Amino acid sequence: MKDRTISRGARPLILVTNDDGIEAQGIKSLVTYLMPLGDVVVVAPDSARSGQSAAITVNVPLRVTQVENQKGYVAFKTTGTPVDCVKLALNVLLSDAPDLIVSGINHGSNSGVSVVYSGTMGAVFEGIIHGIPSIGFSLCSFSHDADFSVCRNVVERLCKKALQQGLPSQLGLNVNIPATDSIQGEVVCRAARGKWVSEYESRVDPFGRPYHWLTGYFENAEPDAEDTDEYNLARNYISIVPVTPDRSLPDVDGRIAQWME
Amino acid sequence: MKDRTISRGARPLILVTNDDGIEAQGIKSLVTYLMPLGDVVVVAPDSARSGQSAAITVNVPLRVTQVENQKGYVAFKTTGTPVDCVKLALNVLLSDAPDLIVSGINHGSNSGVSVVYSGTMGAVFEGIIHGIPSIGFSLCSFSHDADFSVCRNVVERLCKKALQQGLPSQLGLNVNIPATDSIQGEVVCRAARGKWVSEYESRVDPFGRPYHWLTGYFENAEPDAEDTDEYNLARNYISIVPVTPDRSLPDVDGRIAQWME
Repeated sequence: MKDRTISRGARPLILVTNDDGIEAQGIKSLVTYLMPLGDVVVVAPDSARSGQSAAITVNVPLRVTQVENQKGYVAFKTTGTPVDCVKLALNVLLSDAPDLIVSGINHGSNSGVSVVYSGTMGAVFEGIIHGIPSIGFSLCSFSHDADFSVCRNVVERLCKKALQQGLPSQLGLNVNIPATDSIQGEVVCRAARGKWVSEYESRVDPFGRPYHWLTGYFENAEPDAEDTDEYNLARNYISIVPVTPDRSLPDVDGRIAQWME
Repeated sequence: MKDRTISRGARPLILVTNDDGIEAQGIKSLVTYLMPLGDVVVVAPDSARSGQSAAITVNVPLRVTQVENQKGYVAFKTTGTPVDCVKLALNVLLSDAPDLIVSGINHGSNSGVSVVYSGTMGAVFEGIIHGIPSIGFSLCSFSHDADFSVCRNVVERLCKKALQQGLPSQLGLNVNIPATDSIQGEVVCRAARGKWVSEYESRVDPFGRPYHWLTGYFENAEPDAEDTDEYNLARNYISIVPVTPDRSLPDVDGRIAQWME
């Protein structure tokens, strides 16, 4: 494989990744919806990388294998995380920056605090850092054979808009879609605060040694807040949350300066 | 090992973790500085987990092994990420919530955009989500045998302050310390924007197959901004950046609503 062999043609160049792995139904559906909008390059993990957040691989080298090479659609699987996939695309595979990065469609919601752990959204943050319009899509169903067709309309519309007019600087979108045929509309909102609780199931293995398996549920700290994604998703609205990779908290109310005194 | 055997005694309970692994000099120094302030419980990865961001382990169970059991100081190594370590402490090991979570001292800076990828800071975000005052410390030197003693004063002072009066809700601190004997002071500031560039070294392995190893350097997009961590660290000031796990971007200037129209 030669480096940087993929360049922009006459159509927009769209980079697609996910965290469920290249074989997942969600990314296959996403590619189908995006191919009418531009040339699609998939660079995705070779297997599931759920919960990888913005993790990068530093201690071992990465492998990249081409698995599709059609007109308007090429695909590569990698041994890396979702963020590794974006970095490999931008630094090794593409000779032009993509016009849009789309991540997903995730199997399961990335609403509330889940955005912190999400590999799907890790890839979106990486795209924003590189100044590329970036959107993550998640379907609120963990079912392996979920019906992704309810996502088609919003994927097409938001991605077309982002290709036409970009996205505001330092901003990406986290889009969660209820798994229902009766979607009520779309709401721009913020992530509900809360935390995952009762998080481990502790057992003893066949050799008498304890082990701990991550489990639990999301406890919404503000269930009545109408401007949150959780509130709107529960009412069958698509939630569109503007997100930023910036973790700094501006001291708007002076409470930090006060604390430091 | 029985679950939840560690409870708060008469002194404050301080949870310590890192991403360089339990054998790193940085965490050993940190424990030394914190032991005068309270009872210290270390729950840290069994080896280096750099670049793990807020990654969690979902596909395999985790193991926990106790490695220290002194009065006022117990330590466990785990097979998980820094966030896994915090979750295991809160859900499996501790019967009382800690009064403070301290992560580090990281070998190498976590300034600028590095906070996005940092496992050290992933643990801090997890602490904030659980409503516990949380601080990450990093020494701006990748040297294995760096001199951490320059960190002692700021670690002691900020941790004592956080134990006495907590931290404002939904806020943690990302503290970077220049590796110098002539520290000029401390500045509360924000993370410099920028990105890592030239990120892969591509080579061919002994079997003729290509591989790609992450490398590169941080390109500061705003080198003249005096209110950033990079600017102040370069001038030998300790940078204290208030951080939040919230990834939502409030639509303060209406540009998102405008985009959606």
